[in-house]
This record gives sequence, structure tokens and C-alpha cells, in this order.
Amino acid sequence: MVTDTDTADGFVAALRAQSQRYHALHPFHRRMNAGELSRRQLQSWVANRFYYQQTIPRKDAAILANCPDREVRRRWVQRIIDHDGTADGAGGIEAWLRLGEAVGLRREEMEDERHVVPGVRFAVDAYLTFARTRPWVEAVASSLTELFAPDLMAERLAAFERYYDWIDPQGLGYFRARLRQAPRDSDHALQVVTEHCRTPEQQAAAVAALSFKCDVLWSMLDAIDRACADQ
Amino acid sequence: MVTDTDTADGFVAALRAQSQRYHALHPFHRRMNAGELSRRQLQSWVANRFYYQQTIPRKDAAILANCPDREVRRRWVQRIIDHDGTADGAGGIEAWLRLGEAVGLRREEMEDERHVVPGVRFAVDAYLTFARTRPWVEAVASSLTELFAPDLMAERLAAFERYYDWIDPQGLGYFRARLRQAPRDSDHALQVVTEHCRTPEQQAAAVAALSFKCDVLWSMLDAIDRACADQ
Repeated sequence: MVTDTDTADGFVAALRAQSQRYHALHPFHRRMNAGELSRRQLQSWVANRFYYQQTIPRKDAAILANCPDREVRRRWVQRIIDHDGTADGAGGIEAWLRLGEAVGLRREEMEDERHVVPGVRFAVDAYLTFARTRPWVEAVASSLTELFAPDLMAERLAAFERYYDWIDPQGLGYFRARLRQAPRDSDHALQVVTEHCRTPEQQAAAVAALSFKCDVLWSMLDAIDRACADQ
Repeated sequence: MVTDTDTADGFVAALRAQSQRYHALHPFHRRMNAGELSRRQLQSWVANRFYYQQTIPRKDAAILANCPDREVRRRWVQRIIDHDGTADGAGGIEAWLRLGEAVGLRREEMEDERHVVPGVRFAVDAYLTFARTRPWVEAVASSLTELFAPDLMAERLAAFERYYDWIDPQGLGYFRARLRQAPRDSDHALQVVTEHCRTPEQQAAAVAALSFKCDVLWSMLDAIDRACADQ
């Protein structure tokens, strides 16, 4: 007999199975964590990824705008505050800018997006459009790559300290903060998704949303990898 | 010679002139503040207006989702927190539910929207759609009815305490909070709008946005007034 618990377990397992499509497995990330990227390649990654970072609070606000559940909104708004910060010098976007400075980029060349390649822009904009236009529970499900993020963050921190010792470790604050924030965020998102997705159709839509998000992250690395292959 | 300051002064004057279209002048509000509404009419107003109140944080999140300026987002997010609160029993939506209880409504009959009339739903939904789909600076401009709100709130508080003494004054906390929040919010919105609207076309769009918002509020009172005329 298949019980509700079995179904929920199967659903969570299907979500977790998307880890096989997470960008931790992308050749560019594998080379990053093996210490094989040049300084220029790391700079390109940081500058391109900044376009993603600065879009995240807008993506989360789009989810809030579509969400009629006050209790969910009360918790979700914390993500916006985490990224934007509450004052000058605070927040995840600021921490990413400091990472950029630590790898030798100037703030203005990140903020003016001169290094952002089209494939990164298309992927990130597609993620924002998804959050704006799809049902809010699917948008929440798409955030569940955070289930897989802590392992990658831990591996990346170790790799940066080991292989890229020209980067000031003070610049790695963003990764350290996400080690703490990502599990809290993914716990909440998983709770929301399992509560709201009860039918096979709803659960399939949630898995598809997470799969889409894996495509966004993977596609960004494809574009970055291609753009700086010879650098 | 027309200077930039003259132009800005003229722009702010044009925004302030929209006070002549503010719903404080609607016959229903005039009767409310003259003590002429029945208990059933006040209940209808509170229950219908709840639909507006609970949409406000989603409207503000839609503005955040469209706004690329981190400094603006850092301040604007406070509006969402003010309305949603950070815990059970906190926030403007909760304060409105307590107002509803003070006028004799149960929470569930506000939350299930049974009293919400179509004209109110259409007007509020139009406001949310406006915030989602129009340029974010226009959506900010549409919030500037808050320039006119404190006078109405002060008049309403006095009227409630004078004419509707069957309402527990504890239930009027929402109005008291807005006396403090609305000037802070409208100061920020006016600063954003004057900074971003420099051309005649931009300024005309901002005035049109505020005019649209006056239509939203006025149309809600038309619908409520018609729905409970005989009660």
C-alpha cells in the first residue's frame, strides 16, 4: 500500500535526485575546485556571477509578490534582507563585491556589467521571469538548489584557501555566510513545497522547476567557460 | 527663466494637487467622518478594505522585484515588514484584523473574503497589476496617496472616538501606526520620484500614476457605498 508518507518521501527523493544535474558537476566548477583556473578565469566567473547575485533579491521579491500566504512571506522576506543588507557595507551583494575586489576586480567593472556575457544574462533573466510568471510554489521549488549548495560551498572554500592563495581569505565571507543561510533557507523551502505539492501533477511541476533552476546554473557556467577558455 | 528647481517645484505641486481626487472627499468617507455610517456599513467598509490591506505587501514586493536600485530596495522592504509583521500578532494586516474584530467581524469572515464586492476586487487587483507591469518609478509614484493619508487618518481617529464609541479604541491601532509610517514612506517615495523623474514625460507619467491610484481608492468606495447603501 502506498501511503502519503511514502509519496512524500518519493517526492523529496525526486527533488534530491536533481543534485545529479547541479552545477557542482560542471567541468568549469570541477576545474575551479581542482585549482586549475587562471586568475582571469576566476575574475570572469566572479564578474559574471555578480549579475546572478544582484538579481536574487528581485527574484525573491517576485515570489513574495505572488504569494498570498503571510506566514510564508514573513520568512521569505529574510532572503531579500540577507542579500541587500540593511545598511551600507552589509548584505550578500556587498559581500560578493568584496569577493570581486579580492580577485582583483574593481567595483565599477562588476556594477556596469561590462564582463557579463549574453548566455549568463539570458539564463539569469529567465530565472527572474520564471519567478514572476510561474505559480509561487513552483518558484519556491526552483530555489531548492540550496539543498545542494552547502557541499559545494565547503568544497569551494577549501579549494580557494588551498589553491588560490593570492586571494585574501577576507574576501570569502559570502561563501561562509551561505554555509549558514542555505540550510535554513532550503529547510523552509522544502517545508513549503512538501506542504503545497500533494498531487502527482504538483509534485512533477516542483521537480521540473528545480530541474529548470539546475539548467539556469549549468547554462551560466557553459557561457562563462566558453567566454574565458583561452584566458 | 525656468530653472530645474522651478520644474521640480512644479512637479511636486502637480503631485500634491492630486489631493483633490483623494478618497477623503468621497461621499462615503464624508459620511464616515461625520458619524453617519451604520454599524453594518462600517463593517462592510472594514471587510472590503481588508482585501486592499492584504494586497499591499504583494504590491510592494512587486515594486522590489522591478527595482534594480539596492539602496531603494533596502528602504522599500520596510513597508513589507510593516504590513506583514515579523511574528504572530504583529504587523499592519494583523492590526486591521483587530480593527475588524473591534467593529464586530470575525477573522474568518474577513480572511475568506465573503464580504468583498467585485468592484473592490477589480480595483485592488488593478493596483497590484499596475505595480507588477509598469516601470517601478511609476509604481512608486502611485504610492504617493500617502502624502494625503495622515490628514485623513487624524480626522478618522477623531471621528471614530467621537461618533462610534461602541468601537473599542484598542482596535484603532492601525490608524495610529499609519500616522507615523505614512509620512516616513511618502518622504522616501517623493525623494525617489523627484530624483528619477526629470523630463516632462517622466513627470507626467508619475502624476498619471498617482491619479490612477486615486481612482483605485475612489472606485473602492463607490463599490462599497453601493453595496451597503441600505444597511
